[in-house]
Amino acid sequence: MRGVVMHAPGDVRVEQLDDPRIEAPTDAIIRLSATCVCGSDLWPYRGTDKVEGPTRMGHEYAGVVEEVGAEVTTVRPGQFVVGSFFASDNTCELCRAGYQSACVRHVPMGTLGSQAEYLRVPLADGTLVATPEVPPADLVPDYLAASDVLGTGWFAAVAAEAGPGRTVAVVGDGAVGLLAVLAARQLGAERVIAMSRHEPRQRLAREFGATDIVTERGDEGIARIKDLTGGLGAHSVVEAVGTQESMTQAIHSARRGGSVGFVGITHDVSLDGMEVFWSLVRLQGGPAPVRRFLPELMRLIGDRTINPGRVFDLELPLDRAADGYRAMDERRAIKTLLRP
Amino acid sequence: MRGVVMHAPGDVRVEQLDDPRIEAPTDAIIRLSATCVCGSDLWPYRGTDKVEGPTRMGHEYAGVVEEVGAEVTTVRPGQFVVGSFFASDNTCELCRAGYQSACVRHVPMGTLGSQAEYLRVPLADGTLVATPEVPPADLVPDYLAASDVLGTGWFAAVAAEAGPGRTVAVVGDGAVGLLAVLAARQLGAERVIAMSRHEPRQRLAREFGATDIVTERGDEGIARIKDLTGGLGAHSVVEAVGTQESMTQAIHSARRGGSVGFVGITHDVSLDGMEVFWSLVRLQGGPAPVRRFLPELMRLIGDRTINPGRVFDLELPLDRAADGYRAMDERRAIKTLLRP
Repeated sequence: MRGVVMHAPGDVRVEQLDDPRIEAPTDAIIRLSATCVCGSDLWPYRGTDKVEGPTRMGHEYAGVVEEVGAEVTTVRPGQFVVGSFFASDNTCELCRAGYQSACVRHVPMGTLGSQAEYLRVPLADGTLVATPEVPPADLVPDYLAASDVLGTGWFAAVAAEAGPGRTVAVVGDGAVGLLAVLAARQLGAERVIAMSRHEPRQRLAREFGATDIVTERGDEGIARIKDLTGGLGAHSVVEAVGTQESMTQAIHSARRGGSVGFVGITHDVSLDGMEVFWSLVRLQGGPAPVRRFLPELMRLIGDRTINPGRVFDLELPLDRAADGYRAMDERRAIKTLLRP
Repeated sequence: MRGVVMHAPGDVRVEQLDDPRIEAPTDAIIRLSATCVCGSDLWPYRGTDKVEGPTRMGHEYAGVVEEVGAEVTTVRPGQFVVGSFFASDNTCELCRAGYQSACVRHVPMGTLGSQAEYLRVPLADGTLVATPEVPPADLVPDYLAASDVLGTGWFAAVAAEAGPGRTVAVVGDGAVGLLAVLAARQLGAERVIAMSRHEPRQRLAREFGATDIVTERGDEGIARIKDLTGGLGAHSVVEAVGTQESMTQAIHSARRGGSVGFVGITHDVSLDGMEVFWSLVRLQGGPAPVRRFLPELMRLIGDRTINPGRVFDLELPLDRAADGYRAMDERRAIKTLLRP
């Protein structure tokens, strides 16, 4: 099969690879209907994260089950399925607590590489959620978004305690930030402030339910949020970037006693204990337990209540993956969908 | 009146001071039944925090109302009252959200100095909670504890989401840590692990409901907590020290997806973003909104359901405040009660 391999920062190639096979009786093999490039794939692409030799890429996936191992009981060949970027057994104590991304048996899907024609999914029973029927083609991007960006934005909004009567500010206008806007509105937030200085992203944020746009960053951005919230700051803040600046902006945009959900993979971020202490904010972040939310998200997608696939503003055949990475790197695209 | 003044690290004196007076119509003056020395008073005493000239000390108080300003309606002279270490109006948006320590009009009581015979309490209607009757003398230490250490330990346990079915680990065996043990049990925690290497404090922790004692610190302490929790870590961890070591120990003692409540005033603590991210813990700390819990805590004390005053293992007349500070500094006393 063909699949994406990163050789070095900026060097992404589509190569001939071995087809994946059932290795454990709990595995499934899926044929990808669509896959995509994640904002986190840009960390190695830009050289921020090391690339240790040729590396298979991709951890987002939606597709049709081709084959299942002998012990798999909840999905069968022919079903359309979505899974999270961490395979999980969904039965261990941490899974049952809703933290499937910390499953005691978790497998990071990035090590298997979903930017390809086929993908082996470990712990298929725990990991995969099937739709009632194979969905129409136009819904595939929406389901694919559920695999990571939607689930991650949703977790961020939940961690930030978005809900009725709350004002939610979202730092970061990438796909995750934009989908956190959507999540916050779905969760009932009264007011959702998207922080973005890019006109097309502002438009999408509004489509997803943003009530206000703040274009300022840093201290000015914080001041604007305070202006919009009676001087107090937002009840809930989502951080979806992962830098020191964005994290500081997020914490200071929250009111005292507010909540910050952070899902940007933190790079060289250090939190000053005294600052967090006096802010009184509740802080939760990390790799989103997308599996917790998948059944609900897939229902909302199947109902056409939400359309998270709108974040894919570039669609390319898998063979042009390199162009897809480049477009995201140069911020010409919010998120690239790849068709195997 | 007489009151405690700190002149320099290690130099605490009881001096003749002006009696406090009603300054605003929302003030009350109370005659202290008892006051005490806080662990946080040791930061300047030890020179960790600067002492900028002679400084009035003390922010914990329980006593009898002597006089109230013209606008005070909820308390009257002769009533026994307790308040938090932050005066608060209890009506602003942050107070109503349960964050009275962040009240938009909050006044830090430490600036007024409760280690004295009399104390002016601003925003008396919002700040003070009266008992139905003047309590018997033996309950005064319990009520005094509610003013800070009990309320702070309680907030830490709430922030750490202590509750039924949860295992709670407490880092720090000072008065706050010990009372977080009590709080965790009152909140229904199944198992409470006190981390302490001091035999008298271990004994008190057990009295307050600790089910396990861990004497190891640092990595060994974390390993012991993991041993006791099926390799996962505690659901809830309270941090009640405020150092880099204790904070690191707290975060690593929590299971992924667990919660950490931190109330030790952080000194030179820096949190690594990546570590907090991957831990998936929910982190909340800060100056405890004691006022939120006061009515409930005072009811439990009046009922003799809890006896938080047990943390006072040294009682001295106010005039011997210096001895009280010294005993706590040298860890000969957990907490010193002073009788004006």
